[in-house]
Amino acid sequence: MQAYDDNNVFAKILRGEIPANKVYEDKHVLAFEDIHPQAPVHILVIPKGKYISIDDFGLRATPEEIKALYEAVARIAAEKNLKENGFRTIANTGLHGGQEVPHFHVHVLGGRALGPMLSRKES
Amino acid sequence: MQAYDDNNVFAKILRGEIPANKVYEDKHVLAFEDIHPQAPVHILVIPKGKYISIDDFGLRATPEEIKALYEAVARIAAEKNLKENGFRTIANTGLHGGQEVPHFHVHVLGGRALGPMLSRKES
Repeated sequence: MQAYDDNNVFAKILRGEIPANKVYEDKHVLAFEDIHPQAPVHILVIPKGKYISIDDFGLRATPEEIKALYEAVARIAAEKNLKENGFRTIANTGLHGGQEVPHFHVHVLGGRALGPMLSRKES
Repeated sequence: MQAYDDNNVFAKILRGEIPANKVYEDKHVLAFEDIHPQAPVHILVIPKGKYISIDDFGLRATPEEIKALYEAVARIAAEKNLKENGFRTIANTGLHGGQEVPHFHVHVLGGRALGPMLSRKES
């Protein structure tokens, strides 16, 4: 696996070097608004630990860190009034996934019907 | 929140009443192939506990159950050779998310470039 890049933009947000519109924070988790929202609600939820991807997080993170992240997703869904109508969470990994920042992040998307899960059957 | 429906198809798979092509199983987790695959690899990873959605899971599941689920995602990604080229994980919740079965499940998709994260900017 590639090494964690300390200069990725989410590492900089975690260090306070780049601003972000924060919506939630605790010991293990930070959540902030996506700067290019694709839905009325588009929040990114990230661990504070140095994890590149969902599989890196799933293997190396502690149960407490993982619980904290998904509990934060639930709290944000409630806070943003997404529970009644629903929402989608997406984690992209690597090239095929279209991951843009090499720090694990969960997209929380809602506020409108989100359409098909994938845009096309074949690439 | 709605009550858990014991007759949803994933509950029936967990009880062995409906067959599934299982790819992974442990104390807390079952994974099997999606019967309508949208990519060369399309696996569903579900908790064995009765959780309706990702937010239900994030709030009520134990840290051990949550760790088990995301560790299983990582193991499946490795097993299916998705780590080199990448993959996408999606969890749909409710109407806007397009959730089809009211038992929390994570779609693990890979084996091709998956395209844009959402199919359209506006619904």
